[in-house]
Amino acid sequence: MGKRLGKQTVALKDPPVVRGWAAVGGKKEGEGPLRDCFDRLSEDPYFGEQSWEKAESRMLRDCFTLACDKAKLPPSELDYIISGDLLNQCISSAFAMRDTSVSYFGTYGACSTMAEALSLGAMLIDGGFASRVCAVTGSHFCSAERQYRFPLEYGGVRAPTAQWTVTGAGAAILARGGEGPKLTQVTTGAIVDAGITDANNMGAAMAPAAYGTIKAHFADTGRSFADYDAVFTGDLGAVGHDILQSLLEKDGIDTQLKYMDCGMLIYDRKTQGVNSGGSGCGCCASVLAAHILPAMEKGIWKRVLFAATGALMSPTSAQQGESIPSICHAVVIEREG
Amino acid sequence: MGKRLGKQTVALKDPPVVRGWAAVGGKKEGEGPLRDCFDRLSEDPYFGEQSWEKAESRMLRDCFTLACDKAKLPPSELDYIISGDLLNQCISSAFAMRDTSVSYFGTYGACSTMAEALSLGAMLIDGGFASRVCAVTGSHFCSAERQYRFPLEYGGVRAPTAQWTVTGAGAAILARGGEGPKLTQVTTGAIVDAGITDANNMGAAMAPAAYGTIKAHFADTGRSFADYDAVFTGDLGAVGHDILQSLLEKDGIDTQLKYMDCGMLIYDRKTQGVNSGGSGCGCCASVLAAHILPAMEKGIWKRVLFAATGALMSPTSAQQGESIPSICHAVVIEREG
Repeated sequence: MGKRLGKQTVALKDPPVVRGWAAVGGKKEGEGPLRDCFDRLSEDPYFGEQSWEKAESRMLRDCFTLACDKAKLPPSELDYIISGDLLNQCISSAFAMRDTSVSYFGTYGACSTMAEALSLGAMLIDGGFASRVCAVTGSHFCSAERQYRFPLEYGGVRAPTAQWTVTGAGAAILARGGEGPKLTQVTTGAIVDAGITDANNMGAAMAPAAYGTIKAHFADTGRSFADYDAVFTGDLGAVGHDILQSLLEKDGIDTQLKYMDCGMLIYDRKTQGVNSGGSGCGCCASVLAAHILPAMEKGIWKRVLFAATGALMSPTSAQQGESIPSICHAVVIEREG
Repeated sequence: MGKRLGKQTVALKDPPVVRGWAAVGGKKEGEGPLRDCFDRLSEDPYFGEQSWEKAESRMLRDCFTLACDKAKLPPSELDYIISGDLLNQCISSAFAMRDTSVSYFGTYGACSTMAEALSLGAMLIDGGFASRVCAVTGSHFCSAERQYRFPLEYGGVRAPTAQWTVTGAGAAILARGGEGPKLTQVTTGAIVDAGITDANNMGAAMAPAAYGTIKAHFADTGRSFADYDAVFTGDLGAVGHDILQSLLEKDGIDTQLKYMDCGMLIYDRKTQGVNSGGSGCGCCASVLAAHILPAMEKGIWKRVLFAATGALMSPTSAQQGESIPSICHAVVIEREG
């Protein structure tokens, strides 16, 4: 049974445990700083399938299966799967889960989808509606390029502010009771539109949404950066990271060097040619499962704010000259001891 | 605090009330059997906007505002908005809600999205995480045709099994306590893929999902058609309706003439040229708000099963020869007295 702490935040009374997690990545992700942290890396961008979309779906499914295995949980014992992705009509997640026989909620929050899925999953468990929920999201560079930008064969030059869609997936199994990192609070974002129209500068469009949600979280909980070992956004990239940093500084908020962005952690921007950094439903999801949760398990961090951002535009809205509505959903993850 | 009744069904302990609702439709919907039931009908397919997508977004926003007005609730007093639509990246709902300042969950379940939003909203309220939630979904014939099929100017001939995407939106405000129809149970569908590959025959693809969810609901609750005054699917159309009817009959399940489909209720198939019937996120949502909830308010029906279906394919998956995964989410709505 939850408790509302403020306008956008709820506290979970009996916080669900992250019982297992998994991260799958592609070749480029395997060449980045987190190369040793993924559960599986595929040299083959097709993941053995015949199209980019089917590859993305296969990757999601593999990640889901790995997470269930690591949680020692047969998929049939899940009460809900909550999933989503960037493809039109969210096909990669739907096709990935079509033979699971598990109750399924499709979600769409662009690159914030993993935090949305974790938020809903945690509330379903704490509300007594479920004992075990899997949150799983992913993205694929090649399917995203084809759909959002240009066919790969076109070889378009990328803007310096552009981000690189991560080929990756992350899954987390939430459960009632047990040992492990716990989801203790959920701050759900409202949509923020700062008037940015440049679809090659998602970081600038999303930073105000992250700012809004983090400010709301602090207002609702009375906390500050001092109460966290680390605060992650995902995925503003370097451009958005710096905008958020300066928005917070203007408010007199000291980030105490604890603020990091998942889009900057997954690649080496100096050598990997990703411009502003990583993005996509698979970026913060895989960084969560490959980097953040394992570090919490090792006791490196005890309390983390995971604030995932999403740009809720489409190629059609961009072509119609619309600005980019954005959102940021945050969850607090804590580890005792 | 919820209670699990079975593999796919939960009961709400303190069932949320549908405190207000609204339905908005277009010209064709205003010529159909429910013409006198909509809160607002627009002769202008553009709803005063400059593109089909913006029209859809405007319609969703108008419906949302109407529902809040009818519930006598300032939008700022909502704890969550849960919304979704058929457009790529769900832009019509995101753009409609971008200036609400209310915590927002984007959902995607194709034409089942309204039932998904109601399910999640009801659980968030019963779980203690919210007091007031708006579920709102919609679709627009012209934006859907352009995106899924052909530009309108092409004048393509429609298959007899094809359905007509409803230009309409439906919104429902769920709240803790008060008078009105209540959401008492939620049965959440798993994805079902019956191997249908004909994107012009969604009814056939979705009927097995409806069958699965209705059977699961009866198994989990021990109920049958005898326990309901009416059972609605949305939106199988005539083809899917007949398939579901025969699947149930083969199992020896007597529907007692209580089974109806929202896609058949919204249009007069004899005179309106809609082939198998209506479809789209706005079909069952507007039929719920224009027809089902008002009839319950009048005491015509006391217990209804609202089982919305969605086809989780995309033009890309269809072009790649994939079959159509489908889903059906059901909620029980009851009125005392």
